[in-house]
Amino acid sequence: MIGWEDVYKVVVAMVPLYFALILGYGSVRWWGVFTPEQCGAINRFVCFFTLPLFTFEFTAHVDPYKWNYRFIGADAISKVIIVVVLVLWGKCSSKGSYSWSITSFSLCTLTNSLVVGVPLIRAMYGSSAVDLVVQSSVVQAIIWLTILLFVLEFRRTGSIDIVSSSTSVDTRVQSVDPQGKDVEAMEEITISTRPSFWYLMKAVWVKLGMNPNSYAVFIGIAWAFIANRWHIELPSIMEGSVLIMSKAGTGTAMFSMGIFMALQEKFVACGTSRTIIGMVLRFIAGPAAMAIGCIAVGLHGDVLRVAIIQAALPQSITSFIFAKEYGLHAEVLSTAVIFGMLVSLPVLIAYYAVLEFVH
Amino acid sequence: MIGWEDVYKVVVAMVPLYFALILGYGSVRWWGVFTPEQCGAINRFVCFFTLPLFTFEFTAHVDPYKWNYRFIGADAISKVIIVVVLVLWGKCSSKGSYSWSITSFSLCTLTNSLVVGVPLIRAMYGSSAVDLVVQSSVVQAIIWLTILLFVLEFRRTGSIDIVSSSTSVDTRVQSVDPQGKDVEAMEEITISTRPSFWYLMKAVWVKLGMNPNSYAVFIGIAWAFIANRWHIELPSIMEGSVLIMSKAGTGTAMFSMGIFMALQEKFVACGTSRTIIGMVLRFIAGPAAMAIGCIAVGLHGDVLRVAIIQAALPQSITSFIFAKEYGLHAEVLSTAVIFGMLVSLPVLIAYYAVLEFVH
Repeated sequence: MIGWEDVYKVVVAMVPLYFALILGYGSVRWWGVFTPEQCGAINRFVCFFTLPLFTFEFTAHVDPYKWNYRFIGADAISKVIIVVVLVLWGKCSSKGSYSWSITSFSLCTLTNSLVVGVPLIRAMYGSSAVDLVVQSSVVQAIIWLTILLFVLEFRRTGSIDIVSSSTSVDTRVQSVDPQGKDVEAMEEITISTRPSFWYLMKAVWVKLGMNPNSYAVFIGIAWAFIANRWHIELPSIMEGSVLIMSKAGTGTAMFSMGIFMALQEKFVACGTSRTIIGMVLRFIAGPAAMAIGCIAVGLHGDVLRVAIIQAALPQSITSFIFAKEYGLHAEVLSTAVIFGMLVSLPVLIAYYAVLEFVH
Repeated sequence: MIGWEDVYKVVVAMVPLYFALILGYGSVRWWGVFTPEQCGAINRFVCFFTLPLFTFEFTAHVDPYKWNYRFIGADAISKVIIVVVLVLWGKCSSKGSYSWSITSFSLCTLTNSLVVGVPLIRAMYGSSAVDLVVQSSVVQAIIWLTILLFVLEFRRTGSIDIVSSSTSVDTRVQSVDPQGKDVEAMEEITISTRPSFWYLMKAVWVKLGMNPNSYAVFIGIAWAFIANRWHIELPSIMEGSVLIMSKAGTGTAMFSMGIFMALQEKFVACGTSRTIIGMVLRFIAGPAAMAIGCIAVGLHGDVLRVAIIQAALPQSITSFIFAKEYGLHAEVLSTAVIFGMLVSLPVLIAYYAVLEFVH
């Protein structure tokens, strides 16, 4: 069982994050330090400089040859479970929709792993557990965010093209001579959908290419492969240069989130019931799916605990940014980011306490 | 004698500062990340949040009961020497002026001790030497910047009041009956100059009160006295809360200086001859005066070396800010800050190498 001193350690790790958050909030709401345009500057500073170098710093120092693939497998299974449930819900329920499935997927799976997860998990399970958080953040950035962008692009443009062209082709196939012409029609399907796929992928790459954090993860993991393959280290000059900005990552990211909160008209932008659904998806459905994934691959002990805690972290800010860019339930994700951050401390301590009884 | 590995250590400590500087410069000049108004936001962020907490973090952790008072004495003597030279120059030379004396004092004595000095001195003489840098930064912030503000205020308003009122009283004293009236006249001098002094001090306090870094030093040193007197420590929650922003101090301060450089039309804003004079005052006159001060109090070994290197650091940014606020040779101090930062690496390494021969 965990004692008060364990809880205190977690509080000590988390309170500074809230302190930076409150400074950011107060700078806009109480002290009028920044004009609305200037708030954008802090956001850009974080987005282009401190956060990418912060992400790079963590990503470049993992050893991809020593990854815990069972942990990543559990993570993948949990995501697949969620996708299956959402697809079934979309097919079977009258309320189900493609748009809400995307948002629900975001809410269930995408977490703020590095900024919040690293200090939290370090306080709970020590520095060795941090590696797991970094692994899951790399997978999230490379695989899950790419997939999220793909389905968002699919929704925005691709879906209409593909559905309409394949429908028309289907119609034509049925109306023509089965022999000979069939092949031609099939070719037309391939031709009309293949560019659509690449068109979508191109849009996805463009989006990722505009996201400095994606660069940071890709370059970081590429370096991690090289460094661990040939046992080389980043020269200390470069290490220091990355560190000077990456050390600012946590503080500036939380400060910027505080500014973001201050700019919202209200903390709960999407109504009470959607907030509750968002919180249930984030703090219950996500960790529950992860628990199933962990059991499926046979994880136990601290790795199991880290996996579940990691699935119960506050909402990823990137998921909100994408939602806003694609105009898809941005207010739901904004609430999940803000409200989720505020309620996460007691929720995560509760998980921490309960998970001590799991072996 | 120092070897290449010693020089390399210094380069490793300094290059990250230049990296952050270049990112800041490039963000405006090359990548257009920030609009001019947004540049102000980064400056305010540094000025109100990261730098004060950075200063507090260092100041609060010195032990004022174990200060090296000979080191501080040498520092004070060096400043007095400079003041005496400047006063003599002002009295004797036709080119001498009160305004240029103030600017020359700034150039000779005020350094960017914490942001540049701490990593540099740590690389050169180890962590124990950092304490000396912090001591001199505290003295600079509390005593020398206050005096600088006072003389700037004196120049702006006070000087005229005092000179005119005391002159008129002097005239009256000579024209009246020496007995009886003399006392009344003397009282008038006291009355008319005393409010002037307090008027100036009030203006100085208002300026200091608007400078978050001054708060940081005063609160930090007050805490240092309390903490070391009663052997108490900052609770780890508060320590972490300060650290989350203070860790961003160096990176954001250098980034902001890079933005400042990018916003200038040219690096050398004040003409070549004034730039050279500025560099001579900063990198030769200042350290020379410090060397005399050190010899006067009998410093030797690493303390002597730290004192001289510390006097040869790049120009304090605060001195530029004050110069700009009071409209006094801001372009000279801007050049000293920018150009001084750029040339400081070779200059400081040269000092480092030469000082190895001093015992």
